[in-house]
Amino acid sequence: MPANPIDPIALSADLIRCPSVTPVEGGALQLLDKLLSDAGFETWRVDRGDTPNLYARWGQRGANKSFGFNGHTDVVPVGDEAAWTVDPFGGEIRDGILYGRGATDMKSGVAAFAAAAVDFVQDTPPDGAVILAITGDEEGPSTDGTIALLDWMQTQGEAMTACIVGEPTCPEFMGEMIKVGRRGSLTAHFTVTGKQGHSAYPHRANNPLPAMARLMDRLASHEMDQGSDHFDASTLAVVTIDTGNPATNVIPASCKSSANVRFNDLHTSASVIAWMQSEVDAVAAEFGVQIDMPVRVSGESFLTPPGALSDLVSAAVVAETGVTPTLSTTGGTSDARFVKDHCPVVEFGLVGKTMHQVDECVPVEQITQLKAVYARILRDYFA
Amino acid sequence: MPANPIDPIALSADLIRCPSVTPVEGGALQLLDKLLSDAGFETWRVDRGDTPNLYARWGQRGANKSFGFNGHTDVVPVGDEAAWTVDPFGGEIRDGILYGRGATDMKSGVAAFAAAAVDFVQDTPPDGAVILAITGDEEGPSTDGTIALLDWMQTQGEAMTACIVGEPTCPEFMGEMIKVGRRGSLTAHFTVTGKQGHSAYPHRANNPLPAMARLMDRLASHEMDQGSDHFDASTLAVVTIDTGNPATNVIPASCKSSANVRFNDLHTSASVIAWMQSEVDAVAAEFGVQIDMPVRVSGESFLTPPGALSDLVSAAVVAETGVTPTLSTTGGTSDARFVKDHCPVVEFGLVGKTMHQVDECVPVEQITQLKAVYARILRDYFA
Repeated sequence: MPANPIDPIALSADLIRCPSVTPVEGGALQLLDKLLSDAGFETWRVDRGDTPNLYARWGQRGANKSFGFNGHTDVVPVGDEAAWTVDPFGGEIRDGILYGRGATDMKSGVAAFAAAAVDFVQDTPPDGAVILAITGDEEGPSTDGTIALLDWMQTQGEAMTACIVGEPTCPEFMGEMIKVGRRGSLTAHFTVTGKQGHSAYPHRANNPLPAMARLMDRLASHEMDQGSDHFDASTLAVVTIDTGNPATNVIPASCKSSANVRFNDLHTSASVIAWMQSEVDAVAAEFGVQIDMPVRVSGESFLTPPGALSDLVSAAVVAETGVTPTLSTTGGTSDARFVKDHCPVVEFGLVGKTMHQVDECVPVEQITQLKAVYARILRDYFA
Repeated sequence: MPANPIDPIALSADLIRCPSVTPVEGGALQLLDKLLSDAGFETWRVDRGDTPNLYARWGQRGANKSFGFNGHTDVVPVGDEAAWTVDPFGGEIRDGILYGRGATDMKSGVAAFAAAAVDFVQDTPPDGAVILAITGDEEGPSTDGTIALLDWMQTQGEAMTACIVGEPTCPEFMGEMIKVGRRGSLTAHFTVTGKQGHSAYPHRANNPLPAMARLMDRLASHEMDQGSDHFDASTLAVVTIDTGNPATNVIPASCKSSANVRFNDLHTSASVIAWMQSEVDAVAAEFGVQIDMPVRVSGESFLTPPGALSDLVSAAVVAETGVTPTLSTTGGTSDARFVKDHCPVVEFGLVGKTMHQVDECVPVEQITQLKAVYARILRDYFA
């Protein structure tokens, strides 16, 4: 340990006191920039559009061993401030629990890896590089956040050989879960257009609703797969069908619906869209209606196959928490979906139970534990 | 012809000047009551609830030949009064055309049969009875209109042996169409209830939308029949499906839809409901959801089989207009759906093109023609 190790709890509280609701920087990246610069890191602000981003490297650019941490300092809005029992930006500690927006998602995670990285390079300077890539837009559209950092790294010849995303990954208790991948996600919005008419004379109209019913039935009843080695089965959820026709004697002209698809590594967004489009085409032809299907892809599925990186993280978690973590691909999306195109990436962090909620909080001992896990990972990676 | 025949055009205009928007009486039934009483009819006001109704009989109660006319003096609202080029309640005649709300639907029809009936009983008193059953609520909920008249008739021993409903029945020109029946109509409202959840974890929820899609597909794709001797095919139109869920990551708890069924004489509302309920039960069981299906029956299908009554009316139409009418069962519902349980009933009246519209109007010569048709029907019936 260095003479003056960084206290990750105090650093977490300091970060919480920066009101960095997406896309506001709020002083959080500035605080980290100074901490890391003072510790011998080279730092760059890699802002793009309205999004503030910070890149920091200790050691040589392009070193054979370049271990990276990825995270974000932006937070979701406070919500109903009157419902909070503490100042959401106060960073207050009560009975060993640190409160505030970002306490779990994920200012304490950033504080834990920043503290671990600074102590590590000062105490046992490694033969390689330690990198921190921190964005101010993970909770927003994410178009100029980690993507911008990775784009910039490529143009600069900056690279990571392995990366941990410090998002909260544990459902109930510390050490419970490492994420080694995520299902992809996309949402399709369907509009079926026919021809309006009187419900007593359906042959003079072209009702879009039977076509919509058939299409949603075909999509929803299709078994996409039965899961793969590391993934649950892919799923399609029809989330809404809407017409808005109050007149029972009128056949409406059009109808809309949306379906959300979570797909595993047996698919890509392109293959999912191709399948849906073929169903759309078949139903449109059968019913003589027009069907539009714009799609928004939130992320592709990805997997960092269990191996060196997940073994390293698992061993550190077991050593510091006494818990053997599950390797999981559950949950929504995270910035790991961008990092996976750059280098092997896994996610490990705090218990996420209170994230995005009123009185978001974390037991301070878990922040200490998390710093210890990250520190052990660094030691073992460069050993 | 009597010495002073009733002018059906003046009577139509007088009725139009009574502002009898449902359920207001507006003086229309009072005017008819006086006209008929003066001509020797016994009259009764058969009001029920807020609804004014008038029953008038000339001749003996329960006579073997008791010919009835049914109609209504209430009218739909004026709508955009500024768009009218005449006073909707002015009864104005311009260039041989009578204007006003109710000009075709159906104050001129009532005037035509009242004038024909009064002249007939005064000129050639028949061996039997002539009955007028006129309601002030056909355009409204119709719960206390012709139904109330028929209920009252039953308690009083009053009966018709044949009836004409004087609604406008001709699509384009006088004499074109007699209605000998109508398809039935009902509307079913479906609510499918499952269990809300996150769209990434559909197995923890129970999405009502796939069940709704399957149910609507099954109902809409079922061929109810191919038509019958006097009826078009029965039809089912899904008119709306609505969820109102704006969140693509949320599976909704419930979804609603409505379907309107027009059914011919191969079905009854009970048989249609039984079929739909069996589909509901099958889908509810397959998907493990709850499906509620309240149904509103607007009317049963009915047919007065072509025969004595339709022959009588057809012959009169041919004689007075030179046009051979089609016997049809098309269109929506009318009070004939109630009368058909009492005695054989057909519908014949004016050209309905302007009904319910701004500047509703009728050429006065058509009112004269219609009175002549009704008068000939009376003469031939009692001949």
